[in-house]
Amino acid sequence: MSKPFDSPQPLCHYDVVIVGAGFSGLYAARILARKYSILLLEASEQVGGRVRNHQFANGDVVDIGGQWLGPGQDRMYKLAGEAKRSIFPLYNRGDNLFLLGTKKTRYQGTIPKIGPVALADLGQLLARFEGMARQIDPQRPWAHPKAQRWDSQTLHSWVQRNSLTKTARQVFNIGIGAVFAGEARDMSLLHALFYASSGESMEHLLSVTGGAQQDRVHGGTWSICYEMAQQLGERCLLDAAVKKIDQHADGVSLCYEQNGVMACVSARKIIMAIPPNQINRISFNPPLPAWRDQLFQRMPSGSCIKYVARYEHAFWRDEQLSGQVASTNGPVHVVFDNGEKGKDAGLLMGFVDGDTARAWSAKSAQWRQEQVLACFVRFFGENAKNPAEFVEKNWSEEPYIRGCYAAHMTPGAWTGGGDKLRSPELNVHWAGTEMATEWYGYMEGALEAAERASAEVHSLLSRHLERTIK
Amino acid sequence: MSKPFDSPQPLCHYDVVIVGAGFSGLYAARILARKYSILLLEASEQVGGRVRNHQFANGDVVDIGGQWLGPGQDRMYKLAGEAKRSIFPLYNRGDNLFLLGTKKTRYQGTIPKIGPVALADLGQLLARFEGMARQIDPQRPWAHPKAQRWDSQTLHSWVQRNSLTKTARQVFNIGIGAVFAGEARDMSLLHALFYASSGESMEHLLSVTGGAQQDRVHGGTWSICYEMAQQLGERCLLDAAVKKIDQHADGVSLCYEQNGVMACVSARKIIMAIPPNQINRISFNPPLPAWRDQLFQRMPSGSCIKYVARYEHAFWRDEQLSGQVASTNGPVHVVFDNGEKGKDAGLLMGFVDGDTARAWSAKSAQWRQEQVLACFVRFFGENAKNPAEFVEKNWSEEPYIRGCYAAHMTPGAWTGGGDKLRSPELNVHWAGTEMATEWYGYMEGALEAAERASAEVHSLLSRHLERTIK
Repeated sequence: MSKPFDSPQPLCHYDVVIVGAGFSGLYAARILARKYSILLLEASEQVGGRVRNHQFANGDVVDIGGQWLGPGQDRMYKLAGEAKRSIFPLYNRGDNLFLLGTKKTRYQGTIPKIGPVALADLGQLLARFEGMARQIDPQRPWAHPKAQRWDSQTLHSWVQRNSLTKTARQVFNIGIGAVFAGEARDMSLLHALFYASSGESMEHLLSVTGGAQQDRVHGGTWSICYEMAQQLGERCLLDAAVKKIDQHADGVSLCYEQNGVMACVSARKIIMAIPPNQINRISFNPPLPAWRDQLFQRMPSGSCIKYVARYEHAFWRDEQLSGQVASTNGPVHVVFDNGEKGKDAGLLMGFVDGDTARAWSAKSAQWRQEQVLACFVRFFGENAKNPAEFVEKNWSEEPYIRGCYAAHMTPGAWTGGGDKLRSPELNVHWAGTEMATEWYGYMEGALEAAERASAEVHSLLSRHLERTIK
Repeated sequence: MSKPFDSPQPLCHYDVVIVGAGFSGLYAARILARKYSILLLEASEQVGGRVRNHQFANGDVVDIGGQWLGPGQDRMYKLAGEAKRSIFPLYNRGDNLFLLGTKKTRYQGTIPKIGPVALADLGQLLARFEGMARQIDPQRPWAHPKAQRWDSQTLHSWVQRNSLTKTARQVFNIGIGAVFAGEARDMSLLHALFYASSGESMEHLLSVTGGAQQDRVHGGTWSICYEMAQQLGERCLLDAAVKKIDQHADGVSLCYEQNGVMACVSARKIIMAIPPNQINRISFNPPLPAWRDQLFQRMPSGSCIKYVARYEHAFWRDEQLSGQVASTNGPVHVVFDNGEKGKDAGLLMGFVDGDTARAWSAKSAQWRQEQVLACFVRFFGENAKNPAEFVEKNWSEEPYIRGCYAAHMTPGAWTGGGDKLRSPELNVHWAGTEMATEWYGYMEGALEAAERASAEVHSLLSRHLERTIK
């Protein structure tokens, strides 16, 4: 009863096949489709990768994946404009809340109100971090004179050694959790510095107005992906999980599973635009070099569960609250008002990240909802207790994603092979936000990496064309 | 031209299917075959996992994978006896060599001759490490009162903070490289302490006579695997790479690829006996829980290339040298005389590990051989220049292994989900040396984990049998 599996004849030949229809794969397909025959293969049943919309019963749509745009992310603003999506600022009026244990205070801006000693401590800690991050060339984090030292310790170790007060550490760690979707021990200090450098600065990454959480997209960021996929039409294949990639001197053949059937295509070049933790799950022939497989093993994805509670009314706004919370006590440490401009509904969005997000996947959805709402009640009072609707998205559960926002380089990865991370592997080129040098981990990084990978492929294919014409 | 792939009807039904025919899978199969119908599936073309023989042109056989036995590894000694394999001590007469930079000295025992200050420093560093390791219960490393602290830093950070001299650190790091096949920054301090505790002590792991490098097996350790596979006969299937595991309440179905053809079998229980980095490469349905996928992402395998040079004569023995070397300068930091007792040939075995092993996979075999032999010449003189034969084994190149000796827990993994590492996943049970509490990373650990997983399965199946009879 066994059935044939290996080497079905390729159905079709393309100049370029792109694997993964998140922002990066879609953008690479869009660029290359102007000049080349392309095919975009997506393993799951919809495009968008780590970006997705949820539609509430009342018709309102909310981002349950990547959602923010901010200054410096020029490609994203341009792309949103081309897709005719309008941009609106995150609701950012009134006071933010800060909870130190059970003590609740109001504040404005990025840094919550803490005592003068802790504030000075937090200030010097952030200033020191920023000073180091500024020294990192995000194109070559491994090349900094102190790269080995900074890559041999966890971010946690550095924070412990360079802070004096527990409060400063607690507040800094709220930021780490929100920015990285992980614990400070999950990554090397060098990776954290690189990440901040690739996104301008830590302050930029932590800020709303003027920073990485400034703007949102009407109809959700996913609508931009949908628009790109629409333009590709049949050149974008869903439910097509690539299982095997065979390389030979002149090109590549890929076999993918679609509706339980294996099919194969061939291409001159391919662009991989999936998270590093997924790449090793595909069977390459010849196998990827040992150093590269080992490097991808050292790039685990972060973990974050995103929660959105929909209320009939944004009651916190009546109390001059912005909906933004930073809390030292979890499980929800960070909250934002996720309402769309011009919509009535009040949406509170909370993150549960790192170890808590990992542990929570073993609990029931009911239990998780109770925990999150208990936090919202602690922050905003009894009004928060009974939302009209409640949605959660745990990106680590998605079989073709398995984490978010992005991969963390564990200690030693950047300086122990990271210099070759983006180098093509014969006919395979690398995109995806983890291959970005600008805005690593962000949608903008996904575009930057796609642009670079597409340029590599174009350069090679057009050179080949010239040779052929001569 | 696409061909059917999904859900071929299962060919056969077994009580237990075991995935991976290394020491762990073979041992589990051997235990369970006494009472149950079993099938053992091995992805590669031979059994043995991270254990293998190489036969030289002159007929001599040498271990190019795991090779040593030592006191405390009772299961391995017993199993070797049952397989009628005799044991012999590693050649350990004469002086060892220690190279501090280019300065060469002779020494005996585990600790090389270094200056009194460095020696005192190394002594306190080792004593401190051992003192902490002794406190770790290898059944529950996460339960130690300081587990969070020790798991939030790399071993490297701890060594830097607790040593005064560069020499002590260099010597300690030679030991780390040899024991872990990795860099001190590749793992958390807690993992290193657990590892030492699970193998009795760091001193034990570093020692030859009386320690983990005491004994070897005539004909190679692989011959024990071969013997176990012979006894299983047709119940052990080679070239059978498991691709899909579907679980339902009563059992499991597995689909594997063999000679390009997909075949499926079903079982009541399965035991996974493959490295953690390989488990996520198999498609589970339902998918593994988010926390478990994330945990395996945080268990990258170490990296080590093993070199053996065969000389017509063990010329170093004539100079009262043991063949053992510890060198602060690499690329080869550690050498042993790997000759079999009663054989004429002289075999020098060297390890290249961690970042160097990773980087070397991008180089040519010729270049690597020259580098290794240049080290051997530095250690033993011009006689070492031209071996009769030379063999290398890079376990990170093996597509179904991708590293050795074992997985390292990166910072945060043990305390961020490690407590559930060995808990069964419905009908899936976990073996392999990374699931051991005794001798994690060693062949003995592979047996210990197999014993525990087999007992779990037996307990469940026999209880079910009792219920059926009643």
